[in-house]
Amino acid sequence: MADHGEPTELHGLISRQIHLPESDPGHKRFATLFSDTPLHLEYGGELRGTIVAYETWGELKADKSNAILVLHALTGDSHAVGNAGPGHPTPGWWDGQIGPGMAIDTNRYYVVCPNVLGGCQGTTGPSSIDSSSMLPFGSRFPKITIRDQARLEIELSRYLGIERWQAVIGGSMGGMRALEHAVLEPDSTERLIVLATTASASAEQIALCSIQIEAIELDSNFHGGDYYSVGDGQGPTAGMMIARKLAMLSYRSDLEFGDRFGRTLVKGKEPLDPRAFEVESYLHYHGEKLNRRFDPNTYIALSRAMNSHDLGRDRGGVDRALGQIKARTFVAGIESDRLYPLYQQKEIASSIRATESFVGIESSYGHDGFLIEESAVATFINKALA
Amino acid sequence: MADHGEPTELHGLISRQIHLPESDPGHKRFATLFSDTPLHLEYGGELRGTIVAYETWGELKADKSNAILVLHALTGDSHAVGNAGPGHPTPGWWDGQIGPGMAIDTNRYYVVCPNVLGGCQGTTGPSSIDSSSMLPFGSRFPKITIRDQARLEIELSRYLGIERWQAVIGGSMGGMRALEHAVLEPDSTERLIVLATTASASAEQIALCSIQIEAIELDSNFHGGDYYSVGDGQGPTAGMMIARKLAMLSYRSDLEFGDRFGRTLVKGKEPLDPRAFEVESYLHYHGEKLNRRFDPNTYIALSRAMNSHDLGRDRGGVDRALGQIKARTFVAGIESDRLYPLYQQKEIASSIRATESFVGIESSYGHDGFLIEESAVATFINKALA
Repeated sequence: MADHGEPTELHGLISRQIHLPESDPGHKRFATLFSDTPLHLEYGGELRGTIVAYETWGELKADKSNAILVLHALTGDSHAVGNAGPGHPTPGWWDGQIGPGMAIDTNRYYVVCPNVLGGCQGTTGPSSIDSSSMLPFGSRFPKITIRDQARLEIELSRYLGIERWQAVIGGSMGGMRALEHAVLEPDSTERLIVLATTASASAEQIALCSIQIEAIELDSNFHGGDYYSVGDGQGPTAGMMIARKLAMLSYRSDLEFGDRFGRTLVKGKEPLDPRAFEVESYLHYHGEKLNRRFDPNTYIALSRAMNSHDLGRDRGGVDRALGQIKARTFVAGIESDRLYPLYQQKEIASSIRATESFVGIESSYGHDGFLIEESAVATFINKALA
Repeated sequence: MADHGEPTELHGLISRQIHLPESDPGHKRFATLFSDTPLHLEYGGELRGTIVAYETWGELKADKSNAILVLHALTGDSHAVGNAGPGHPTPGWWDGQIGPGMAIDTNRYYVVCPNVLGGCQGTTGPSSIDSSSMLPFGSRFPKITIRDQARLEIELSRYLGIERWQAVIGGSMGGMRALEHAVLEPDSTERLIVLATTASASAEQIALCSIQIEAIELDSNFHGGDYYSVGDGQGPTAGMMIARKLAMLSYRSDLEFGDRFGRTLVKGKEPLDPRAFEVESYLHYHGEKLNRRFDPNTYIALSRAMNSHDLGRDRGGVDRALGQIKARTFVAGIESDRLYPLYQQKEIASSIRATESFVGIESSYGHDGFLIEESAVATFINKALA
C-alpha cells in the first residue's frame, strides 16, 4: 500500500487517501485498515489487520443520506469507473453506469465501491502479507464465505458512518453480497438492486467453479497455493488460463460465439493444429490478460466463496431469508444468461416482500450482458433510483 | 488382440472372430486388419496396418440387403449391446435400442458397430502399437478428422461386401460420421438416421473441446502424449478428470443437476471443504470411471477430430454438402441439449433433400437424452425403419 499516501488515524482505524489527477474530479481512493477489529469468519478462524481498499465518486452529504454501495463481481475490483492506471490495471468495469448525469448519478450520490475480501486489488486476500509470518498468506489464507465478505463490507459502512445506504447494488457475485447485506442489515438498506445473480449457488454453478479450481490446482506451478516465492514466482498461469477460458464460455453465449467467430481459422493454421480457431485464440487472449492482473489463490478463494453462497443457510432456507429483506427491491436478469439463469432472479424477486420490479433484459451476450448491455441496464437502474 | 481368437485370411485382410458365450446369441466380435490398404489421411500422413474392431448382431442375408451401420459417440465403442465383460469394460451404450424385437430389430437386421479410428477399444488409435517402432504411437499418432474416420468405416463396408446400408445411424460424434458417410457414399446409404449432432462444429463446441484438451495436456503426467511407459504409466488421469467433468456438465442440464443434487453436501463435509457437494462427488465418480477405461490420447485425438468436423470443407460449404446427400433422412435432437442445440439438427434436416422427419425430443437430460430417453428414441428410430 506504499503508494496510498499518508495515513490518517481515526477511531483506531487508519485511512489512507490517494491524490488523483485533476482530470478525474470527485474520484478518491482509500485503503482502510481495520487494525483492531478482528473479523471472525463463518467457518472458523479470524482475520486481523484486514485492509479494505475502496474508491468513491461524488460527495457525501453532511447527513450521509446519499450513499450508494456498489459491489463488484468475481474478477472486478474497486475501480468501477475510470481509466486504467497505477494500482488499477483495467478501466472501470461499470463505466457506463456511474458518473455525472448517468444512471448512478455522481452529482447526486456518493458512490462507494470496495474490493472484496479475499481479493487481490488492495483488500486483504491470499496474496496479502500475513502479519504473523510476514509472508503472503497463500495456503494459510482462511476459508471465507460470501457472508464473511458482506460482513466486512458492513464494517466499512460503520467506519464511514453510513447508517443507511440509498442503494446497495451488485451483479453476479456482487449481487450475492448485496443480498447478504440486505438480510444482515435489513434496516440499513433503502434499495436493493441486484442483477444476474442468485440467492444460492446451484449444483451446476458449484460444478463449474469446482472444475475451475481443480484446473488451477492441477498446474504444477501451484505448489499447494504457496507459489509466490517458488521458482520464477509466476504461479499456476496455465491452470488459470483453463479456468478463465471455461468461465468466459459460461459468461457468454453460443449465439455470440457463433456470430463472432464461427469456424474462422487463425491465419496460417489448419483445423487440426493447436489453437487453430479464432475462438480459441480469443479465449487465450483473455486468459493471458487475466493472468497479468489476477491472483490464482484469489480466484480459488472467491470461487469457493461463491459455492458456499446460500442466503438460506442457518436462516431456515432461502425463502425465509429473502422474506427478512425490507429493502425496496429491483431485480434484473439477462434472458440469455446460462450461468445465472433468469429463474434464479425470478425466485429472488418473488420472495422479497418489497420487490418493485423484475426485468428480463434481452441480449445475445449471456451473463456478461449485465456489464455489456449499458443502455438497458441504465434504464433499469434509473427507474430503481427514481 | 490376443483374445480375439484365430485369424482367418481373406482377400489380403485378416479377420479374427471371438467366440462369445451361448447366452448372447447372434452377437459376434471381430477385429479386421487392413494390412495392405494404407489409409491416406486428410491432413497428411497415412496409417498402415490399421485394425478395425467391430461387433455384430443378427444375421446378414445372403444378398447383404439387411445391414445397418451404428456409429458410436466420443467415449463409446463397438459394444453397443450386451453386458460388460472381457474386452468391453462397460455394458452396451445403446442396449435399449438394439435387439430382437427392438427398434433396431436384430431378428430383421444385421447390425454392425465399429470402434472409431483413433479409439482405444480395439481399433487403431494413439495407444496402439506402431509397427514401425513396436511402441505405442503416443505423440506420433497422426492427426485425424471425422472424414478420415468415416473413410475407414467405408473401407469396412467394402470389406464386409455391403454395397448399400439399410441405414447408417449415429448420435453426437457418431452422427458426424454418419453424415460424412452419406456425403462420401450417397448411393450406398438407404437411410440416414442422426441424433443430437451437427453438420459442423460450432465456435462454442470447438472451445469446449479445446479446454478439455488443454486440461489433459496440463497434467504433468502427460509427457507430451508419451506417458505409456513413463513413471507408473498411469498417464494424465487428473487432467482427464477435469475434461470428463466439464464434458459431463455439457452433456446434461442445469435442471437435472438441480433436481438430483441441489446443494446437498457429502456427509460430514462443510461448504468450504474440497469436494463438499454431492454434485462434485458425482462428477468425480464419473471421472474416475472413465479413467479406468479410456485412453487420454484417444480423448484428445477424437476431440480434435470433432473440432475439425465441417461437412462443408472442400465441398463449397455445409449447405452444398448436405445437398449431396441422397439418403432418406431422419433427424432428431433433444430440446434441452445445450452442447448440440436443436438449431443444428434443424439445419441438417432442412438442407437435405430427402429429409422425411425431424423430431425434437422433450427431455430434461440435455445432450445425453439420445442415450437416456429410450422410449422416445425408439419411437423415432422405429418410424425411420418402418
